[in-house]
Amino acid sequence: MARPITFLSDYGTTDEFAGVVRAVIHRITPTAPVIDLGHGVPRQDVAAGARMLARALPYAAPGVHLAVVDPEVGARRRAVALRTEEEDRLLVGPDNGLLLPAAERFGGVLEAIDVSASAWRLEPVSATFHGRDLFGPVAARLAGGAALGDAGAPMDPGELVRVELSRARVEDGALIARVTEIDTYGNLALDADHRDVKRAELKIGGRVAVRFGTRRASGVLARTFADVDPGSLLVYQDAGGSLAVAVNGGDARALLGARRGDELRVEHG
Amino acid sequence: MARPITFLSDYGTTDEFAGVVRAVIHRITPTAPVIDLGHGVPRQDVAAGARMLARALPYAAPGVHLAVVDPEVGARRRAVALRTEEEDRLLVGPDNGLLLPAAERFGGVLEAIDVSASAWRLEPVSATFHGRDLFGPVAARLAGGAALGDAGAPMDPGELVRVELSRARVEDGALIARVTEIDTYGNLALDADHRDVKRAELKIGGRVAVRFGTRRASGVLARTFADVDPGSLLVYQDAGGSLAVAVNGGDARALLGARRGDELRVEHG
Amino acid sequence: MARPITFLSDYGTTDEFAGVVRAVIHRITPTAPVIDLGHGVPRQDVAAGARMLARALPYAAPGVHLAVVDPEVGARRRAVALRTEEEDRLLVGPDNGLLLPAAERFGGVLEAIDVSASAWRLEPVSATFHGRDLFGPVAARLAGGAALGDAGAPMDPGELVRVELSRARVEDGALIARVTEIDTYGNLALDADHRDVKRAELKIGGRVAVRFGTRRASGVLARTFADVDPGSLLVYQDAGGSLAVAVNGGDARALLGARRGDELRVEHG
Repeated sequence: MARPITFLSDYGTTDEFAGVVRAVIHRITPTAPVIDLGHGVPRQDVAAGARMLARALPYAAPGVHLAVVDPEVGARRRAVALRTEEEDRLLVGPDNGLLLPAAERFGGVLEAIDVSASAWRLEPVSATFHGRDLFGPVAARLAGGAALGDAGAPMDPGELVRVELSRARVEDGALIARVTEIDTYGNLALDADHRDVKRAELKIGGRVAVRFGTRRASGVLARTFADVDPGSLLVYQDAGGSLAVAVNGGDARALLGARRGDELRVEHG
Repeated sequence: MARPITFLSDYGTTDEFAGVVRAVIHRITPTAPVIDLGHGVPRQDVAAGARMLARALPYAAPGVHLAVVDPEVGARRRAVALRTEEEDRLLVGPDNGLLLPAAERFGGVLEAIDVSASAWRLEPVSATFHGRDLFGPVAARLAGGAALGDAGAPMDPGELVRVELSRARVEDGALIARVTEIDTYGNLALDADHRDVKRAELKIGGRVAVRFGTRRASGVLARTFADVDPGSLLVYQDAGGSLAVAVNGGDARALLGARRGDELRVEHG
Repeated sequence: MARPITFLSDYGTTDEFAGVVRAVIHRITPTAPVIDLGHGVPRQDVAAGARMLARALPYAAPGVHLAVVDPEVGARRRAVALRTEEEDRLLVGPDNGLLLPAAERFGGVLEAIDVSASAWRLEPVSATFHGRDLFGPVAARLAGGAALGDAGAPMDPGELVRVELSRARVEDGALIARVTEIDTYGNLALDADHRDVKRAELKIGGRVAVRFGTRRASGVLARTFADVDPGSLLVYQDAGGSLAVAVNGGDARALLGARRGDELRVEHG
């Protein structure tokens, strides 16, 4: 039985990119189940993709985990396949930091292979679509049972490129946090978690104010939406473990006018 | 052999929500085929999701039918798993009316289980993502052959929450109908069907006028697009059985400026 | 073992259309793997769908290839199932030119069947959703091993409708090319390839100017993104073999203001 392949990318759903990668995988290893984690990573945003992958993989069965957010495709960035310390998971994608936060959820990287010149690639390799020509084929062969060592050349895991993920800070009792993602409901995920809440001395059930530029909205530090009235603002820990800002039955993005990457101020109020 | 699982939600395709639920299901019951009916239900619109599910399920093989449109997640709404009278279908989702119109297509609900505290849930259950932590696991176990009765506590089907679906009315010979859905082509589905057409005494092939606010467009009550000239308006029975307004080769939403929930007037003209 | 089915359409991801077709296929032939190539063909754009299908199929295993972009559904256009000369691929869809460029990648059409009145259709056939009622069922039966000849009535492949795909021309040393597709990154694919580049005497590494109306941007005829500075324009051969215009790390659509169907001028400069 082939191993399952999860697949995350920034390919979107307008083009056939993700579909062609699925077709390539199926052609090489027809029995490998492919589970699309999603293709809506904000385009070319490696940090957002890295957060999303790290959040999703603990819910997926161990297998091959293909991820492609690849702004430097065709340049000299390496392509890699990694084995995690725990659970024998195999991660495949560009060496730009996308895979490492996920690998760290499983004890880090035990073994790293540079697959840039993998014998498994489809020739001719295009300059711009390595999901189809390189990453998909490598993931498919690994799912089919081929040995990781045969995917390319061994490399030192310490040389893997890391992506810097921003992290909230506390200043004058306020939490200064960046919006890392905005979901389809308009909820704003921040680069903060329950430890930052503690550092800023905010309390569950207490009033909080959220400021963005000249806009200010006040609400409650709540456990969930139902803890506040419809239309009211809440700050809560979302299902991915991040602190987030939302409006019960509404749209926090629209209320605050914030966009991905913007810095908000969360404080008592 | 595991039973198939159909999956409908308002999770959209931007986030990894639907993908993580698929991963959870695969992890629990790897052999269950998952058929995505779609994740484009207008967000938190339970009535639209209920119509979509009821329309789709008669085309799907009997199995487990997972649906998540869940504005009250984390509040006191129940989570349920239902067995239909006919065809032994199992419906899983929030107890907010989403599942009942679909169940009625199969003779109604034979057996209802409150799965809010199901032993099958993933711990800790998040306050906001029950698709991942509760509904997905319950659907996966049922698809794998576990007994419905083991999913939670029996409840009286009569206590299930119902959603009120609007229904067109006839006034002064005109059909007053609400736009329930707008598809990707800009076609407007109404809360009316062929019975309402009859009540309003409209005739196939006859001229009709559609009014929305100060806008008015006239066209034909037709069987299909090809019955009118390109660019012309038609009122027809769509593939889901609803009366709908469209423009052949065009976009009725743009022509009339109507949005979901708006009331139109369809009359002789 | 059932044959795999690839599935391409303009159904989008907002509605349940593609999902219902998947459900219908699963119900008829539960063991046929369905590989979604994508559902983001620009709506009712047969030529764009034809290009996409022709580009994708060489990467998919031989099987049944279902494609639906069907502006004339319900009118008198035929529905067809085709066998290719090479590789025994079966293409299913409307007879409007959508399938032929793909068939030509495999030596053209060996056998054509008019399936408009196929015994395999779901009754009653709706006037507007032949993906569900006709094409899906035909694809599913073929994947399950039914004979192509049993799908309907034989027809002369020479009578199949062809779609005219535009092709760039060279005027006064400039390449006049139409934008055929714009991908999720804002890259503009043109109706030109490396042969047209040669005819216009453009050289890899040389300066080029791209003009659209009064806008003009200059850049490099490059092999890939990494060959130019971030923010710079490039003209390159994309992964589908088309000449394309892009901005490294940016959005060529926004820079030039061009839309699908617009004509650009690419010249030395």
